[in-house]
Amino acid sequence: MPRYDAPIRDMQFILHDVLQIQNYSNLPGFEEVTPDLVNAILEEGGKFAKEVLYPLRAIGDQQGCIRNADASVKTPDGFPDAYKQLVEGGWPLLSVSPDMGGQGLPHIVNIAWTEMVSSSNMAFGMYPGLTHGAYQALMAGGSEELKQKYGPKMASAEWAGTMNLTEPQCGTDLGLIKTKAVPQPDGTYKITGQKIWISGGEQDLTENIIHLVLARIEGGPEGIKGISLFLVPKYLVNEDGSLGERNPASCGGLEEKMGIHGNATCVMNYDGATGYLVGEEHKGMRTMFVMMNEARLGVGLQGLSQAEAAYQNAVDFAKDRLQGRSLTGAQAEEKPADPIIVHPDVRRMLLDQKAFIEGGRAFAYWTAFQADLEHKSPDEKVREKAADYMALLTPVVKAYLTHKGYECANAGLQLHGGSGFTREWGLEQIVRDCRITTIYEGTNGVQALDLVGRKLAANGGRAVFSFFADIDDFVATHEGNEDLKPFLDGLQSIKAELQEATMWLMQNGMSDFNNAGASSHDYLHLFGLTALAFMWARMAKVALEKKGSDPFYETKLKTGRYFIDRMLPDGAAHLAKVKTGAASMMALEAEAF
Amino acid sequence: MPRYDAPIRDMQFILHDVLQIQNYSNLPGFEEVTPDLVNAILEEGGKFAKEVLYPLRAIGDQQGCIRNADASVKTPDGFPDAYKQLVEGGWPLLSVSPDMGGQGLPHIVNIAWTEMVSSSNMAFGMYPGLTHGAYQALMAGGSEELKQKYGPKMASAEWAGTMNLTEPQCGTDLGLIKTKAVPQPDGTYKITGQKIWISGGEQDLTENIIHLVLARIEGGPEGIKGISLFLVPKYLVNEDGSLGERNPASCGGLEEKMGIHGNATCVMNYDGATGYLVGEEHKGMRTMFVMMNEARLGVGLQGLSQAEAAYQNAVDFAKDRLQGRSLTGAQAEEKPADPIIVHPDVRRMLLDQKAFIEGGRAFAYWTAFQADLEHKSPDEKVREKAADYMALLTPVVKAYLTHKGYECANAGLQLHGGSGFTREWGLEQIVRDCRITTIYEGTNGVQALDLVGRKLAANGGRAVFSFFADIDDFVATHEGNEDLKPFLDGLQSIKAELQEATMWLMQNGMSDFNNAGASSHDYLHLFGLTALAFMWARMAKVALEKKGSDPFYETKLKTGRYFIDRMLPDGAAHLAKVKTGAASMMALEAEAF
Repeated sequence: MPRYDAPIRDMQFILHDVLQIQNYSNLPGFEEVTPDLVNAILEEGGKFAKEVLYPLRAIGDQQGCIRNADASVKTPDGFPDAYKQLVEGGWPLLSVSPDMGGQGLPHIVNIAWTEMVSSSNMAFGMYPGLTHGAYQALMAGGSEELKQKYGPKMASAEWAGTMNLTEPQCGTDLGLIKTKAVPQPDGTYKITGQKIWISGGEQDLTENIIHLVLARIEGGPEGIKGISLFLVPKYLVNEDGSLGERNPASCGGLEEKMGIHGNATCVMNYDGATGYLVGEEHKGMRTMFVMMNEARLGVGLQGLSQAEAAYQNAVDFAKDRLQGRSLTGAQAEEKPADPIIVHPDVRRMLLDQKAFIEGGRAFAYWTAFQADLEHKSPDEKVREKAADYMALLTPVVKAYLTHKGYECANAGLQLHGGSGFTREWGLEQIVRDCRITTIYEGTNGVQALDLVGRKLAANGGRAVFSFFADIDDFVATHEGNEDLKPFLDGLQSIKAELQEATMWLMQNGMSDFNNAGASSHDYLHLFGLTALAFMWARMAKVALEKKGSDPFYETKLKTGRYFIDRMLPDGAAHLAKVKTGAASMMALEAEAF
Repeated sequence: MPRYDAPIRDMQFILHDVLQIQNYSNLPGFEEVTPDLVNAILEEGGKFAKEVLYPLRAIGDQQGCIRNADASVKTPDGFPDAYKQLVEGGWPLLSVSPDMGGQGLPHIVNIAWTEMVSSSNMAFGMYPGLTHGAYQALMAGGSEELKQKYGPKMASAEWAGTMNLTEPQCGTDLGLIKTKAVPQPDGTYKITGQKIWISGGEQDLTENIIHLVLARIEGGPEGIKGISLFLVPKYLVNEDGSLGERNPASCGGLEEKMGIHGNATCVMNYDGATGYLVGEEHKGMRTMFVMMNEARLGVGLQGLSQAEAAYQNAVDFAKDRLQGRSLTGAQAEEKPADPIIVHPDVRRMLLDQKAFIEGGRAFAYWTAFQADLEHKSPDEKVREKAADYMALLTPVVKAYLTHKGYECANAGLQLHGGSGFTREWGLEQIVRDCRITTIYEGTNGVQALDLVGRKLAANGGRAVFSFFADIDDFVATHEGNEDLKPFLDGLQSIKAELQEATMWLMQNGMSDFNNAGASSHDYLHLFGLTALAFMWARMAKVALEKKGSDPFYETKLKTGRYFIDRMLPDGAAHLAKVKTGAASMMALEAEAF
């Protein structure tokens, strides 16, 4: 029956064998990141995910959240207690700076923990996840006073945080925001307006909720240049840190939605609520982007996490379910039929998941590692390159990992046959929960446009050229390694396709922006494939070195070969579509649809 | 807000312009199939779907079915009345033979009606849909007595029909069936066993339900060769046609499932219920396959129908939703933002749907037309070829149209952004309902194996060689038609890829069956693409001839160009995967997953 076990061995492999984070002890927070310490965290974290969070996954889905007559919100049974254990265990503090009460560990260690939370209970994980994002925005843009007053409690997740961007008339296009901020004589603002789709906008998990709200200061510039960011607590906070007056910021309703039922998606009404400016007037988007980039990486990880959850259950089912016989003769003659894992097409569904998940995890963790380097390296060159990579890769992690993650969730369901469609086996919830990941924090289409319209061209293409150069270096370094050759060949060929697509975009995307838009989806997918091919080549190199010590490495190599054989061929199709350009996409008049 | 309008113009185009069914008046049932008659049926049918069935779509999802303490089942509010109207309107009788009280119209006309029913309310449509399938199985295998007694009432859908195949231990592998049939002195059988996932196994729509049940006659051969088919009525039927005793065939429970909540998915318990043998002893699978082939075509159509439902709403949303500005400058300066249909990536999502739906509809209808030719043509050669095509194309229609249909449903949801994830906009229901189509009536993996393992090789490959020859003929006939050239080129190149894949399979699939299994999924998709390219070439030919008379034809050509440019490139990836073979798929030990 359904289960979740944290894939600790795979996480260790990426952290210690591939990225070798133990070799970065010159960076603050990395001093003591020995394999032993990390293993202890992964094991305890895995236990928490399996024993505390996973059992609430189905309950959360079936009960959902309830808005009471007094506008308070009840989360599913067990959520408040699990949340309390989460805070008491200090889990939200893993990578928080010690001056805010945190453990100061690398971001990448926190990412592994975040994956476990999300795999075991995605709806639950959003409460601390968004709180961490809000905390980081506060750290990035808030005044010292705001940081001291709200920082520690948000860092520990004792107080939750939310992001308030969307309004009925605006989602992607935040220039259309109508929520109004009126300056008060005491330096605060009165915030009035309606926000929708606010995850965790109201709940019964924390004694206070700190809303970060985008609003327009009265009389400020129109459009996106007049948007400011405000901190609006549910309860005002007194000088001594105790809770004061209730702010008129309340939940007007909950959305009925396809999945993540355990997370309260609120309509939030601000009726002259007291807010505090975060950062500069009219420059709210800048700070919000800090939070959004963080959140986008987190959403990519959610996509991956649901693929992992689906995969584990699909493997169990494929080994247990007896149905039909192997095409090449019975494998389990003593049984009435063979387990379905003998069938090639069942293996195709499993390996599509496995090869994606392991490559995607390396890619997500590697990207997250750039955040550590960006913020902690003493070397300016390293920081610059890491910042370039973060900017370039974030939209790819977000969109590619959620798109493929959703495909994997569906493959896991499909493998279950009719059982997958029933509630009992848990797969259909994974698919429904995962469905939101390709949408929120900027739809995947918006990510693709961000990639081709902004990230590629930034600094004259410096980031993408670094990426190509790193791949070339890797290939050159290992040339002649015959065992690695299939991986190097695969990497070189997909990289050549990506390079050709990049050149095409540089030549054709500027002369007609619609060419860039028309190609953005396929370009992003080609990029994702290339990134995974790079990761697989790096993983294969390590696995070849360690082969023989543990069958784990042999499995890694076989999985990687499947990736090369069966997933890379999509690259050529993406390239062909990129080079098709905008003509046939823009030919129809709107009325002709 | 959500809506459904039957795509009558597109249906007419396929029936009269492309397939030209009015030219087959030599076939029984086709005598009076003038465009006027067909239009009247499509218009009345569309009205019924829009006004009676569509308004119950969301209600059916939200209420679902309820099993009462007495094991009776309540369908959602409005379903019984709508069903009554359906029967009174004579809709189920469209293509039924006049000697069973039907109108005797072509199967293909019924297919268009079936699409409308499914688009407007898939869960509802399953009740009459499965009844029609059961009716056809009875006609194919039943004795004259059974036909006369049950045929007319099942044909009109006054009595519903069900298919009882699955048991807890067997789905795909029906050789494992345990349900038992014990012969009685009067020639009837006592049926005992449990069946699961029985759609419409119990309901409050009809006064009787006729179950077709697969069971094993005591003492018969083991495995699939000992399976017989029985007709088991809920109420026994007296000589005079009135209802008699209640048969012990009852609903033991309803499944909680991801979608199609309006359809009752029952656990059925047979406790010594009286059953009548349909066809010969131990030869039940033969008759059941008649029903399954019919049902598989119907399921393919369901996939298509959900894509259509999603597309219509996505188009509305794309035209209405104002967000951002066109990449090439504001298009609707008087508005706060442009409608999102100006964005290339939004058009990509719409055109992926539109190009698939229109090609897929032509493919499904063309295949259904083969059923008419197979059963009604006076020419033996025509009948043989039509039967070949039906056999060859049914798994492709089922699997390709449901796989792509689900992708389209998801694209429609995706285009709605956050709104798509909420219940209010109806898209998430479309996705959930559509999800079952890739699974039931044989999973898509089973269809792919049926195609490569059985259908390709039948009669020395006669069917697939006919298919290639028909494509070659079409290309040769229209060579030199410059306007048609892009379509002919696209068709030739994808056909060459399919041919290469077929040769590869013939050479490698027999020496190692796992090669066939490993390639089956991609082979089927390559086949689907080729079939759609053939349909697009045929549609383009007609559209070019009629261009100028109606902008409809210009739109058709532009949509077709998009198909060639943006969908055909996937063919090369499928071919590359086919030719990869089984090695990397079978390399891992089961324990290594």
